[in-house]
Amino acid sequence: MPDSTPLAAAEHPAQALRRAIRSGDHATHTSGQAPGYVQANLAILPADYAREFLTFCQLNARPCPLLAVGDAGNPFLPTLGEDIDLRSDLPGYRIFVEGEEVDRVSDITSYWRDDLVSFPLGCSYSFEEALLQDGVPLKHIQHGERVATYVTNIDTVPAGRFHGKLVVSMRPMKAADAIRAIQITTRFPNVHGAPIHIGHPEAIGIDDLAYQHFGGAPPRMDEHDIPVFWACGVTPQIVTEATKPSFCITHQAGHMLVTDLRNSQLSTL
Amino acid sequence: MPDSTPLAAAEHPAQALRRAIRSGDHATHTSGQAPGYVQANLAILPADYAREFLTFCQLNARPCPLLAVGDAGNPFLPTLGEDIDLRSDLPGYRIFVEGEEVDRVSDITSYWRDDLVSFPLGCSYSFEEALLQDGVPLKHIQHGERVATYVTNIDTVPAGRFHGKLVVSMRPMKAADAIRAIQITTRFPNVHGAPIHIGHPEAIGIDDLAYQHFGGAPPRMDEHDIPVFWACGVTPQIVTEATKPSFCITHQAGHMLVTDLRNSQLSTL
Repeated sequence: MPDSTPLAAAEHPAQALRRAIRSGDHATHTSGQAPGYVQANLAILPADYAREFLTFCQLNARPCPLLAVGDAGNPFLPTLGEDIDLRSDLPGYRIFVEGEEVDRVSDITSYWRDDLVSFPLGCSYSFEEALLQDGVPLKHIQHGERVATYVTNIDTVPAGRFHGKLVVSMRPMKAADAIRAIQITTRFPNVHGAPIHIGHPEAIGIDDLAYQHFGGAPPRMDEHDIPVFWACGVTPQIVTEATKPSFCITHQAGHMLVTDLRNSQLSTL
Repeated sequence: MPDSTPLAAAEHPAQALRRAIRSGDHATHTSGQAPGYVQANLAILPADYAREFLTFCQLNARPCPLLAVGDAGNPFLPTLGEDIDLRSDLPGYRIFVEGEEVDRVSDITSYWRDDLVSFPLGCSYSFEEALLQDGVPLKHIQHGERVATYVTNIDTVPAGRFHGKLVVSMRPMKAADAIRAIQITTRFPNVHGAPIHIGHPEAIGIDDLAYQHFGGAPPRMDEHDIPVFWACGVTPQIVTEATKPSFCITHQAGHMLVTDLRNSQLSTL
């Protein structure tokens, strides 16, 4: 039976979705849910690693756009949503010990520790919504596929134990759409911003667009399409996995932190 | 002997350059002169053609960005410079009768008529200055060459007797510079604005970049360069020539109207 208190009536879609996730009523990915609201990648690290990872994110803001930073041991992120509790508000988490995945859970209360620092990171969903609203077609969405991602030959700026290659996502576009996409995503520096590359894949170490480094079907390149490459949130994931921190929690792919921020609020113009 | 009145001392570089042109002391092109100030293409047409040409410019603002419109018979353009007299302030003019060039002169006082309407049009010099100031290399400038220009298969929007294909200028760039150039030129809608095409030349009817439709050496394309195409001010020139108006005056190539506007004032951001 739906909650009908005045408070519940005032809930907006992001709060309602988080409530459903928290109660177990929504247990799958968050793609397409609470449209208009910012969804975030999540990395949670012990304080021992937090300063280095924070530095890494600040030095590599294109792949690692921080939306906030949690206080050590504090699972709340009031600037992203008054009632957010990171221990229960994502539908899926991955638990890593020394770089090895040891568990997948829908609640991390039992794993929470006093030294954990949370890092919510902007995600391409936000700029993809802006592109679609502007009429820029996104083929992977039209065909219900994952966006194509590749490891480049571009080094991230290292920080302490964190270092690795930049991962990019690629969206094939007609030239006019590519130009428009550059204009639109430039307005969203907190969700990867403008593309980091267009055209020649081999210039950034991608020999064959058909071969994705993390699996997935070859992207759909039509005649006169230009490949447009954005820095990708997979970058901090592979960098963190390679660092093999003593302990780490991340979201499961597509099982994001849904925030109260609107995507349009991330636009600088 | 230099003029040393207080008024002359207050002149800024654009005014000083116009004074030198007016007096015959500066009789060549204006490229690189009065840096920072907007230089404009110029078309002058009889009132009989003016409304149609004005409409053409408004419908095709990317190739034909109007900076002002003169009153019929009035050779002054106070919004572009208090003292501008279009009859004497450009170093070179071309006179056309029925589409045929009949004269090249450095003063059009004897050709001026009560029905002439002037159309100063923004020029790529303004955005090229912004690109160079931002560190985006422009190879044609580095090598002292003219920018490469091509007739595309893209129709302009016709207006009355004015119609024709879009002409573009092309600048080869590395991908990161092309992305930055799109961001910078987007701020300058009154001087052609963002590129209209990137990548595949054949997608806009250019079969071979080495062959320029108006002559000129093949552009310098290096490995991984992307061709970046902007709408070009040659478009209104060829459209006007094809229309063969009863009478027409234009600037000579590179012999521009130097205005008191600063290039930075054309930036929308």
